[in-house]
Amino acid sequence: MRAREAGLACGELPPGARNTIADVPGVLVGHASVRRGEVCTGVTAILPHGGDIFADKPLAAVDVLNGFGKSVGLLQVAELGALETPVLLTNTFAVGTCADALIRRAICANPAIGRRTGTVNPVVLECNDGFLSDIQAMAVTAADAEAAIAAAASDFASGAVGAGTGMSAFGLKGGIGSASRRIVLEHLVHHLGVLVLANFGRAGDLMLPDGRRIQPDAAPPSAPGPEAGSVIVVIATDVPLECRQLRRVARRAGAGLARSGSVFGHGSGDIALAFTTANRVPHEARTDLLPLRVLAEARIDTLFRACAEATQEAVLDAMVAAEPTTGREGHHRGSLRDLL
Amino acid sequence: MRAREAGLACGELPPGARNTIADVPGVLVGHASVRRGEVCTGVTAILPHGGDIFADKPLAAVDVLNGFGKSVGLLQVAELGALETPVLLTNTFAVGTCADALIRRAICANPAIGRRTGTVNPVVLECNDGFLSDIQAMAVTAADAEAAIAAAASDFASGAVGAGTGMSAFGLKGGIGSASRRIVLEHLVHHLGVLVLANFGRAGDLMLPDGRRIQPDAAPPSAPGPEAGSVIVVIATDVPLECRQLRRVARRAGAGLARSGSVFGHGSGDIALAFTTANRVPHEARTDLLPLRVLAEARIDTLFRACAEATQEAVLDAMVAAEPTTGREGHHRGSLRDLL
Amino acid sequence: MRAREAGLACGELPPGARNTIADVPGVLVGHASVRRGEVCTGVTAILPHGGDIFADKPLAAVDVLNGFGKSVGLLQVAELGALETPVLLTNTFAVGTCADALIRRAICANPAIGRRTGTVNPVVLECNDGFLSDIQAMAVTAADAEAAIAAAASDFASGAVGAGTGMSAFGLKGGIGSASRRIVLEHLVHHLGVLVLANFGRAGDLMLPDGRRIQPDAAPPSAPGPEAGSVIVVIATDVPLECRQLRRVARRAGAGLARSGSVFGHGSGDIALAFTTANRVPHEARTDLLPLRVLAEARIDTLFRACAEATQEAVLDAMVAAEPTTGREGHHRGSLRDLL
Amino acid sequence: MRAREAGLACGELPPGARNTIADVPGVLVGHASVRRGEVCTGVTAILPHGGDIFADKPLAAVDVLNGFGKSVGLLQVAELGALETPVLLTNTFAVGTCADALIRRAICANPAIGRRTGTVNPVVLECNDGFLSDIQAMAVTAADAEAAIAAAASDFASGAVGAGTGMSAFGLKGGIGSASRRIVLEHLVHHLGVLVLANFGRAGDLMLPDGRRIQPDAAPPSAPGPEAGSVIVVIATDVPLECRQLRRVARRAGAGLARSGSVFGHGSGDIALAFTTANRVPHEARTDLLPLRVLAEARIDTLFRACAEATQEAVLDAMVAAEPTTGREGHHRGSLRDLL
Repeated sequence: MRAREAGLACGELPPGARNTIADVPGVLVGHASVRRGEVCTGVTAILPHGGDIFADKPLAAVDVLNGFGKSVGLLQVAELGALETPVLLTNTFAVGTCADALIRRAICANPAIGRRTGTVNPVVLECNDGFLSDIQAMAVTAADAEAAIAAAASDFASGAVGAGTGMSAFGLKGGIGSASRRIVLEHLVHHLGVLVLANFGRAGDLMLPDGRRIQPDAAPPSAPGPEAGSVIVVIATDVPLECRQLRRVARRAGAGLARSGSVFGHGSGDIALAFTTANRVPHEARTDLLPLRVLAEARIDTLFRACAEATQEAVLDAMVAAEPTTGREGHHRGSLRDLL
Repeated sequence: MRAREAGLACGELPPGARNTIADVPGVLVGHASVRRGEVCTGVTAILPHGGDIFADKPLAAVDVLNGFGKSVGLLQVAELGALETPVLLTNTFAVGTCADALIRRAICANPAIGRRTGTVNPVVLECNDGFLSDIQAMAVTAADAEAAIAAAASDFASGAVGAGTGMSAFGLKGGIGSASRRIVLEHLVHHLGVLVLANFGRAGDLMLPDGRRIQPDAAPPSAPGPEAGSVIVVIATDVPLECRQLRRVARRAGAGLARSGSVFGHGSGDIALAFTTANRVPHEARTDLLPLRVLAEARIDTLFRACAEATQEAVLDAMVAAEPTTGREGHHRGSLRDLL
Repeated sequence: MRAREAGLACGELPPGARNTIADVPGVLVGHASVRRGEVCTGVTAILPHGGDIFADKPLAAVDVLNGFGKSVGLLQVAELGALETPVLLTNTFAVGTCADALIRRAICANPAIGRRTGTVNPVVLECNDGFLSDIQAMAVTAADAEAAIAAAASDFASGAVGAGTGMSAFGLKGGIGSASRRIVLEHLVHHLGVLVLANFGRAGDLMLPDGRRIQPDAAPPSAPGPEAGSVIVVIATDVPLECRQLRRVARRAGAGLARSGSVFGHGSGDIALAFTTANRVPHEARTDLLPLRVLAEARIDTLFRACAEATQEAVLDAMVAAEPTTGREGHHRGSLRDLL
Repeated sequence: MRAREAGLACGELPPGARNTIADVPGVLVGHASVRRGEVCTGVTAILPHGGDIFADKPLAAVDVLNGFGKSVGLLQVAELGALETPVLLTNTFAVGTCADALIRRAICANPAIGRRTGTVNPVVLECNDGFLSDIQAMAVTAADAEAAIAAAASDFASGAVGAGTGMSAFGLKGGIGSASRRIVLEHLVHHLGVLVLANFGRAGDLMLPDGRRIQPDAAPPSAPGPEAGSVIVVIATDVPLECRQLRRVARRAGAGLARSGSVFGHGSGDIALAFTTANRVPHEARTDLLPLRVLAEARIDTLFRACAEATQEAVLDAMVAAEPTTGREGHHRGSLRDLL
């Protein structure tokens, strides 16, 4: 079930056909879930396009709402304004493994990396799923990262899947959610799509679009403190933007998170990464100057609204889609869908 | 009338006795309203304490949510982490006049400024009240700035007063609003208080805490475009914080604004300035090292929540308190209180 | 006399024909000097092009090396990435007056400002010339600002002129300096030009390109403390860049300042503002999407080098060109040219 | 041989007894070098103190001069202002392995991590040693990281050792260098120490403190392009600072790098990390409020100068100490000491 089917549509702009990040043409998403014994975790891959991302880099930008997080690759995205690998989402202690897997994959496709050309900047974002999963097991492998990338497709699951397998939100089951908004520019249809890894929010703080507050049935037993949180928001669009504009759009993810009940808690790594498929730069430019197109700045409010709405709805999408889950030491998270 | 009396309390933390920024001991607020002919504007002064602020500087920090704004002084606050003057709020084109007034006032109290010691950093924040007021008239004078400072007191008005005289919000009358939250640390009562200058939000976007959306009776005639907006959030606390912590707290103002219906629009200069009265630095330190106290970081979530809640309530406070106002060329803004 | 004529050329890239910021086609510079009694100050105007800057905005970015400064307009440049007015340089306490003059001038050319369109963002940067000038006199007038703009031309003076009239550097006379570098892209000649307002550096710290350190003849009498400093670096280019790239280029001004002997002192507001004449955005775009050209990122090192070299040489240019000056209370600054 | 012994002392402040980062009491440095076949790399560990860093976190801050880099952990340092692990330096593709090693080590000492308390933020900084080493081999192991930490001591080697084993600078051999400056505050001796991992600078750009430029004997054969660079600057002090002040100090590393001949090249990840041993925060605070001491801001110029001088000298120290090295595919780097 999707959030919109559960009556939890957010805002006023129309969604795309799939109402996911994959409404942006070319964007693909794949999951690898890892469940065994006390381990309940995984990897989700977002591919900005189906080609070689190192060779053909989409412009990108980052906005860090609260930097309690251990993501890698964001420093270089902020400086150079481009992605060079798929974006992987996973648990906090699997970042190194996933980054290494991205490096090896890029070398495999571009043997010059680190030898006749520069290095590659892997992007891996994370949340802490330690409430439901034994994060100390460091169970995610390079094969899981590869599997998530290999599984990438336009249609993909929401909920307790991939990196979302063990995540929690507002004292309930969290996970992967998505939504999109349709935007017409110069008579052509464009989209802005969002994918969230939702693992944030204090129990009892969840707000629905109609103003209801949702309280889990029981206080979570021996829950980790505030540091257990985090939410990752990945924003894709086929509207041509420059890096400064992408950062402005990314910042509006915070409005969607706030409306879902978050105050960007101290221990929650709240990070938004935005990219456009409409402006790409080659690794080896054959000319000194490259053409870009950018949105006239005064038109950007629609993208701001789209980002806020789709982020809020993607969080609810993750929670509605997620199955109730029991994990490490019998810790349990119920599903929002059972409380509506 | 205050927001809370109108049933628009926000969040769960208890308010202070006044439920204004002046619940933080020592903080004073004064207004000077300027109404004549097509002019409908003014100045509001916030004094962090009643003494000489240049000599005894409170630690401060800034978070710029959307930098479409012409404020002065924020660069130096970000670098040096302290206030040196009262904070003045006014209209966009009165910033220069108000900054000059602050400089002259500081020189008057400290004749060494610019001669035997450094210069002074005036802080003036602004919104564009050009819908109701003839902003081209550049009508605010140094005397208005002085009058606002001279009027500063613990009790002060909300609504269409001071810098809020000509401001609009969500297609209705905006202005000055305030709220506070009570926080107990080590068995002692502390406060976080917020004062907003609310001049933001698209007509029809206003959200109340219970989920209602509020639509003005009529679309505003010949309204200025999105650039007409802005909201300034000034946050005071007597909790001892370092500058990095103050910036973290300031960032949570965005959660309150988002919940009131904003997506931090392109043309809205959305700026939060936070200061603490509990950590101050002298202009001329007599020792190399100075003692500070800081909040243990893991306790900061309560301040985040307080900031988000008080910001949201302060916006509603401004709108409930504001009288319906007719200004330049017959432009009119109704009051939220008449729509509840 | 120019720095290069004095044997103080910096770096390896070739200068442009004028070796000033005006080698960038269209860029104009004008001065208004104010000398009377104890006052020794002024205004310098940099026009990115000869047209209406509000209507046709060049892309721009800011890098704040040390934010001990009271400049206005930088917040909005950082957010929106464009200039809307000429850039004015002046003394610390004349910022308000110059900003007001820019607002009035923009309204005059665009009567819709603040009425049927948004407001205008004046950009004014400052240094403290209080050692040689009675800064408390607040002597700069709107007429001085207008005069500097009216005087703008491709040929302009360096040294103790305009905003540089009363400035000091390294215990010697500072002021306005300029330099440029020639860059070939796609077989076409481009330029990067720098103009500095040099008012920074501790006496005795000045380094020349050949390694010499320059000590003023006498320690300055009753010199103001470290807060007396600041250096403003304005960088122009006709290489097409996006805002992120402009900020990267601006940051390299710091390399030039460091090589002249600065450690970006606590009390020195060290600010770099970069703009490109090759990418401009209209105030009212007629289409949703706009074409830009950008430099292929791997080619940007030449611009970094050009910025560092031209900044270092512009500082020396200011000091070589400046006449020895006696000002307020008999305070005196000798000229570097007399020590070479 | 050390830089100072080679006549390459920088600046005017006196060095500490060791003239290394270990002049800051408690700071320890250890190396593990990895040399076999085409591999010429390693790990260097900097321990802020000899105890459990997760339990007793030194305040810290980051300044990113040029973010072309793949370091991990900086996001959280910027937000929370503290270190939780030793700082590891290594090659670009060993970041994941080193981060995992730090995580496992922290869990070993604090079994509650990820279970009953939050996660841990490993800090690993990197340069690309791919010119001399086969970086694709991904040869660094967790055992190497452990070995570097285990070897940490007050006395440690400079030059081609640890993370510096395969690094290059200015077309010559780079590596690990260090320097310190002695600072008296309130009649007590304090220190600021710097350790650099120098792998930056174009051949022929090296500047010595006396103004000489150094050209390698031969242009490097088939050198990697500009992306091959980077320099990491780690700054330690026992002067009590708050996070904002630490970031200000870190920024001055750029002045030292510029004076050594760098313009912070496009492809060089130039990052400065500063920490103080004099202000630490516990993982589990027993009180809501904690005492800090901070430096009176007007005294900070001495630390700025110390940072710039020690950074410049540490770069030269790395180059003087480094042995000539032949690595991957016969690539060779000569030593600066042979050119003096």
